[in-house]
Amino acid sequence: MAIQQKLSLMIPGPTPVPEKVLEALGRHPIGHRSKDFQDLVEITTKNLQWLHQTENDVLTITGSGTAAMEAGIISTLNRGDKVICGENGKFGQRWVKVAKEFGLEVITINAEWGKPLNPEDFKTVLEKDINKEIKAVILTHSETSTGVINDLKTISSYIRNHNKALSIIDCVTSIGACNVPVDEWGLDIVASGSQKGYMIPPGLSFVSMSKKAWQASENSNLPKFYLNLKSYRKSLSSNSNPYTPAVNLVFALDESLKMMKEEGLDKIFKRHERHKLAISEAATTLNLKLFADEKHLSPSVTAIQLEKMDAENFRKTIKIKYDILLAGGQDHLKGKIFRVGHLGYINDRDIISVITAIGNTLVEQNEISTEKLGEALSAASCHLKAI
Amino acid sequence: MAIQQKLSLMIPGPTPVPEKVLEALGRHPIGHRSKDFQDLVEITTKNLQWLHQTENDVLTITGSGTAAMEAGIISTLNRGDKVICGENGKFGQRWVKVAKEFGLEVITINAEWGKPLNPEDFKTVLEKDINKEIKAVILTHSETSTGVINDLKTISSYIRNHNKALSIIDCVTSIGACNVPVDEWGLDIVASGSQKGYMIPPGLSFVSMSKKAWQASENSNLPKFYLNLKSYRKSLSSNSNPYTPAVNLVFALDESLKMMKEEGLDKIFKRHERHKLAISEAATTLNLKLFADEKHLSPSVTAIQLEKMDAENFRKTIKIKYDILLAGGQDHLKGKIFRVGHLGYINDRDIISVITAIGNTLVEQNEISTEKLGEALSAASCHLKAI
Repeated sequence: MAIQQKLSLMIPGPTPVPEKVLEALGRHPIGHRSKDFQDLVEITTKNLQWLHQTENDVLTITGSGTAAMEAGIISTLNRGDKVICGENGKFGQRWVKVAKEFGLEVITINAEWGKPLNPEDFKTVLEKDINKEIKAVILTHSETSTGVINDLKTISSYIRNHNKALSIIDCVTSIGACNVPVDEWGLDIVASGSQKGYMIPPGLSFVSMSKKAWQASENSNLPKFYLNLKSYRKSLSSNSNPYTPAVNLVFALDESLKMMKEEGLDKIFKRHERHKLAISEAATTLNLKLFADEKHLSPSVTAIQLEKMDAENFRKTIKIKYDILLAGGQDHLKGKIFRVGHLGYINDRDIISVITAIGNTLVEQNEISTEKLGEALSAASCHLKAI
Repeated sequence: MAIQQKLSLMIPGPTPVPEKVLEALGRHPIGHRSKDFQDLVEITTKNLQWLHQTENDVLTITGSGTAAMEAGIISTLNRGDKVICGENGKFGQRWVKVAKEFGLEVITINAEWGKPLNPEDFKTVLEKDINKEIKAVILTHSETSTGVINDLKTISSYIRNHNKALSIIDCVTSIGACNVPVDEWGLDIVASGSQKGYMIPPGLSFVSMSKKAWQASENSNLPKFYLNLKSYRKSLSSNSNPYTPAVNLVFALDESLKMMKEEGLDKIFKRHERHKLAISEAATTLNLKLFADEKHLSPSVTAIQLEKMDAENFRKTIKIKYDILLAGGQDHLKGKIFRVGHLGYINDRDIISVITAIGNTLVEQNEISTEKLGEALSAASCHLKAI
């Protein structure tokens, strides 16, 4: 089978990986109980705390983002606990499933897919809970399936006011893409995955745990072993891991976190913001409809709705002609939307390429004029880096 | 931190990785929902079946061997189920912990660490179970912590005679090192990990599931999500994964399985057998004591007991002087034994190097004469490849 080395990954994960990081990945492994590896755990953990803007423990798990979210839930809660789950997309839906699987009592706060969760809905439910029966609020910050970002800052302030409930947040496509100041917002449990803003291949996931989360973990009675975060904390105290970690992905992580520190959080966030604006403005100029509410666009992924064409055919055309991989819609959105990932190791050229590919395809299908394509690229260009 | 590129990994995992496999690992990732990746899943799954000598499903999980064992247990059993756990080392002990964590009723069959489990003990307990209350027998084939191989062939025949109980076997350091004919022995659930005989870095694990295991999974009521093997089976039917897999490790897996097929199972097993004999005979010639019963030596790892010296100091000396990493003893064996891994991508030169390093160190400590060292190398050489 042909691995296409020149493929441009414009999906919301796996995201493109810098050469330097690939080189680190391809090194000979070392012993995971060696001093050299302990040094790596120490430094990557410190840099993960920098990325999360937190003094909380940040644990590294070998597994996907789903494993990290599940670990956060089952390491802190008890059978029968009442929790709120925010659900406005596939990932929100997934956390409802996890919560129910483990026997939690779920209050769902919904919004239509493509719309953001309403923070006031959380406020209302939390304020009514005078007996403090709600033990956690579980939600997705950037909903990868729809390209919507939820107002985590406001929702987390309501969770803090409640004082008892833990916040358990899927930040899989927000960490490393936009501001998620874990300590400032008082987020208890934050889960993320390596193949996103981290710019490394999939296989590692991360969980940030507050003191309050650790306190809750003391009484947690849900059965768990591999995903029991208490084991990870115990090992981390000696810069180690409870089970053999994906050593080579940790080499890659070390390299990518150094690159991120060199660029700096503020520049990383601004780059994602510029790219988001470039793509969304270009799309509307091309007469395409954004699937997500325009005021709540994710910094990492833009979902575009096609009304006349099949979105799967559309993205296949772009894959074949331009070697750019776009993501499709998930579940009932399959064939109706396509998603442009602009997360992680993406530069301005990637953005103009993908806009051009989309625009050219529309021109060829007689959907727009070439003038429109020119206008769209010009609109996008305003948001690209000033020289 | 200095990654030592010339380090020789002679620990029972991570094991050395061939250049070709490292190159595959360091490729640019591709989309995990793409046709290219589906092709990879299809071919690696077929080759995993070849390696397991089975027509059963073999599933790939992103996680450690522990995750794979846990997945096998929690995907098929029910709360309160009676199970037998074989325990003659750290890993056997771990499966007892997992079983108890999930509320299983555990009958433990023990042997002293360093001794093999007695198959007749299993026969006795299984034959007494007329009401077929025992739902599974959980044990470790090659006990990595002590260098003992258990007689899985005989034990599995007793499990088959029982007819009801599933066999759930940790083959983490036996698959790819010695004969484990899954279909011939009728093994229901077999777990293994990538950083062992597979010759790839840690991060993937594998579970082979028999029809009987899938039948049991239909009624299993233990809570699980990320490690629910039913989700992996469902995705595998379209050559996919339920959650984002470690794409680059799958590139590596594809390459390493091709190398294994080129070498052939028989040659791989013979190579491990020769290396085991070379190391164990050399060790006894050097007046060292094998920790494991000589008739039940693991094909992958040899544990050597030091009576006068501290084993941790001994292996540190070898690390510093020869850049060979040996494993220490675990738990109460720390400082008492060291372990030589001879698993995966190991050639004859690695074997003579490690014997020489051990022998020279003993000579320098006035423990043996140089003649002894010569004798040991000569004894080892008899087991190396005839030219």
